[in-house]
Amino acid sequence: MKISARNNLRGRIVDVVKGATTAHVRIDIGGAVVTAAITNEAVDDLKLKVGDTAAAVIKASDVMIAVD
Amino acid sequence: MKISARNNLRGRIVDVVKGATTAHVRIDIGGAVVTAAITNEAVDDLKLKVGDTAAAVIKASDVMIAVD
Amino acid sequence: MKISARNNLRGRIVDVVKGATTAHVRIDIGGAVVTAAITNEAVDDLKLKVGDTAAAVIKASDVMIAVD
Amino acid sequence: MKISARNNLRGRIVDVVKGATTAHVRIDIGGAVVTAAITNEAVDDLKLKVGDTAAAVIKASDVMIAVD
Amino acid sequence: MKISARNNLRGRIVDVVKGATTAHVRIDIGGAVVTAAITNEAVDDLKLKVGDTAAAVIKASDVMIAVD
Amino acid sequence: MKISARNNLRGRIVDVVKGATTAHVRIDIGGAVVTAAITNEAVDDLKLKVGDTAAAVIKASDVMIAVD
Repeated sequence: MKISARNNLRGRIVDVVKGATTAHVRIDIGGAVVTAAITNEAVDDLKLKVGDTAAAVIKASDVMIAVD
Repeated sequence: MKISARNNLRGRIVDVVKGATTAHVRIDIGGAVVTAAITNEAVDDLKLKVGDTAAAVIKASDVMIAVD
Repeated sequence: MKISARNNLRGRIVDVVKGATTAHVRIDIGGAVVTAAITNEAVDDLKLKVGDTAAAVIKASDVMIAVD
Repeated sequence: MKISARNNLRGRIVDVVKGATTAHVRIDIGGAVVTAAITNEAVDDLKLKVGDTAAAVIKASDVMIAVD
Repeated sequence: MKISARNNLRGRIVDVVKGATTAHVRIDIGGAVVTAAITNEAVDDLKLKVGDTAAAVIKASDVMIAVD
Repeated sequence: MKISARNNLRGRIVDVVKGATTAHVRIDIGGAVVTAAITNEAVDDLKLKVGDTAAAVIKASDVMIAVD
């Protein structure tokens, strides 16, 4: 599968915390850690666990720019 | 200003392309380039240009996880 | 690639309109047409054109519910 | 009320799961099931329950396109 | 129609700018002006024009919090 | 920090409810209350509590327009 989302940041999962319905997954992309809030269901479906190789995928329209 | 968004990926702007109303700004965060689709107005307001230090800011609920 | 986004609606592309930076792609998913606003770049990268089989992918946190 | 969101997929609610703050609601739109992550509060406010007619509403800028 | 989105800020449209595919609509909600980036198509479909009463509708998961 | 997000609605926090992973924060912006769904982590990190001055920050592409 190839997706239109412009951002695909590859790394390794360093944290998976499931809540009641929403899970937080953290990926170390090398120099930075990206946090994703996804469904518990997706964590189970993709069998996500610490140490796995994975990518953070983000649609360009969801990215903001900040300057100091 | 401190913001609730969990992801703040610092880097350098490598591309700014303005469209009719929507601009695309690319930031090299070291090892990866992140694309943001923002308003032309924001580009002007923040005076974004190639070479500037900037950060890609992303809310955790807008991040997906992909595996091979 | 397998993605955490919970919604994957398969269909056929019925319209591709490129703007200055943002394109609108319509997919007939059988009984309904879904409109996506993506980058022109993604249209080129995925070589999207009318008649192609494709899927509309949507993160669960981007879906609202409406009732009459 | 008429809304600017381009996607309105009508169907029937097949699942409502409330978490601590976030609920997951599934709508069978005929041939596909769409999952929405909304607030528990919205579930209560709209009195959503299995069997109800409802629509999944999605802004075009939140839809991605995937191809095989 | 009643929608799950928690935020409905009523006001008056003060600006409508159409781009190639994406329009920017501004609503004065009394004390603040809210900017929406929507499709040109939605502007036409809802016949949005300066002076109209309208509401800015925002899903709670798309709102961030900032402090000084 | 200056951010590209076009909407910054200042007010006072009137409610903070933490769930298992997702918190709901409400800000009275004067005449309207805005609800944000953010991570518990962000609530802790920004030390958000009732009575604090804060702003709701929203990207223009996440704002929809509704008319009666």
